[in-house]
Amino acid sequence: MPLLDLTPDALLATTRSVRKRLDFSRPVEPEIIDECLELAVQAPTGGNRQGWHFVVVTDAQQRQALGEIYRKGFTIYRQQGAAESIRAQGRLTRDRLETLKKVQSSAEYLAEHMHEAPVLLVPCLWGRVEASTPVEQAGAWGSILPAVWSFMLAARARGLGTCWTTVHLNYELEAAEVLGIPFARVTQAALIPVAYTLGGTDFKPAARVPLESIVHRDRW
Amino acid sequence: MPLLDLTPDALLATTRSVRKRLDFSRPVEPEIIDECLELAVQAPTGGNRQGWHFVVVTDAQQRQALGEIYRKGFTIYRQQGAAESIRAQGRLTRDRLETLKKVQSSAEYLAEHMHEAPVLLVPCLWGRVEASTPVEQAGAWGSILPAVWSFMLAARARGLGTCWTTVHLNYELEAAEVLGIPFARVTQAALIPVAYTLGGTDFKPAARVPLESIVHRDRW
Repeated sequence: MPLLDLTPDALLATTRSVRKRLDFSRPVEPEIIDECLELAVQAPTGGNRQGWHFVVVTDAQQRQALGEIYRKGFTIYRQQGAAESIRAQGRLTRDRLETLKKVQSSAEYLAEHMHEAPVLLVPCLWGRVEASTPVEQAGAWGSILPAVWSFMLAARARGLGTCWTTVHLNYELEAAEVLGIPFARVTQAALIPVAYTLGGTDFKPAARVPLESIVHRDRW
Repeated sequence: MPLLDLTPDALLATTRSVRKRLDFSRPVEPEIIDECLELAVQAPTGGNRQGWHFVVVTDAQQRQALGEIYRKGFTIYRQQGAAESIRAQGRLTRDRLETLKKVQSSAEYLAEHMHEAPVLLVPCLWGRVEASTPVEQAGAWGSILPAVWSFMLAARARGLGTCWTTVHLNYELEAAEVLGIPFARVTQAALIPVAYTLGGTDFKPAARVPLESIVHRDRW
């Protein structure tokens, strides 16, 4: 797969959360993943510490084990999500509710199939970020999540689909045991399935709440 | 300024932390900032909640006040950084030490001049993320930091320089008071100076620790 012909704006506008369109039957070349990682680590880190680690999982048994942990974590998320949907029904517009239901159905699908993604990426940050202050949290997460997003953008430019997920962290210790991650010294940040996309590589910008409602000029 | 002619890879590889090369004398057009924000909100959020808010500060007095808070926060960071440098001297290579010193000198410069950046962006997340669990933190920060990084990438594509900073969060409440942010319900995520760049728009990929030392195949 050659690089897609995307402008920077098109790249940023069309990197969607891909779940139902992940192609589980097509392998992803290891060198493509490495290219994405090389670009990912060009992202900034606090004090240029570069305390990032990436576990790239392609082994079927390891993926199976991670998939099971993900599904357990998703059960917790589903319960929270259901409660939230009920609360939200009064205040969300019909459009937002429709989108929410679509995301939920798509997330259910991903939970069932997570282990089938040819590559599962677990980005990690050196150090534990347990009960820290907001400034510590912003520094810590700000030193790994930009790289994660860069990885996903680089993947998009290569015709790959990805999806940002975090619910496996409900069982982070179990995942650490499966992957051999030193839990006491390393925080997992996400679990990103990576696969080529079904139905071509055309993705559209998503509907978003209008800027007027979320942008404040000089003061809130 | 027309869009720079950057491939997706070049965009991801050359979006540097710009401090000394921020052009404080050239205003940034408000519509350019809005374009960057439109692209920023194409980033993903947990459950598609889009709980993001952005305070765009151009008023000189507001920037002055934020700059003072930033400098106070930087003093704390400088003390931590100095201690860390001393500890690091034994274990860092000469190259890494040189880089660290360069980053520190550059950060000192930015602290002195933060208020001079024509635009200061404060991205915020709805809800407080105080002493939460890692899974809550990953979900919360993962719902604002990708958008922040997208903003910075979109800015880069427009010839603008930015720099990810968090030390003003040492005094987040004071910043909330200056900006009118409802502190009890909203978490600030960063403070991003935005300006055109001095010396053209050519930036290079940065030296990084090699992938072999941070990538783990199937298990750590």
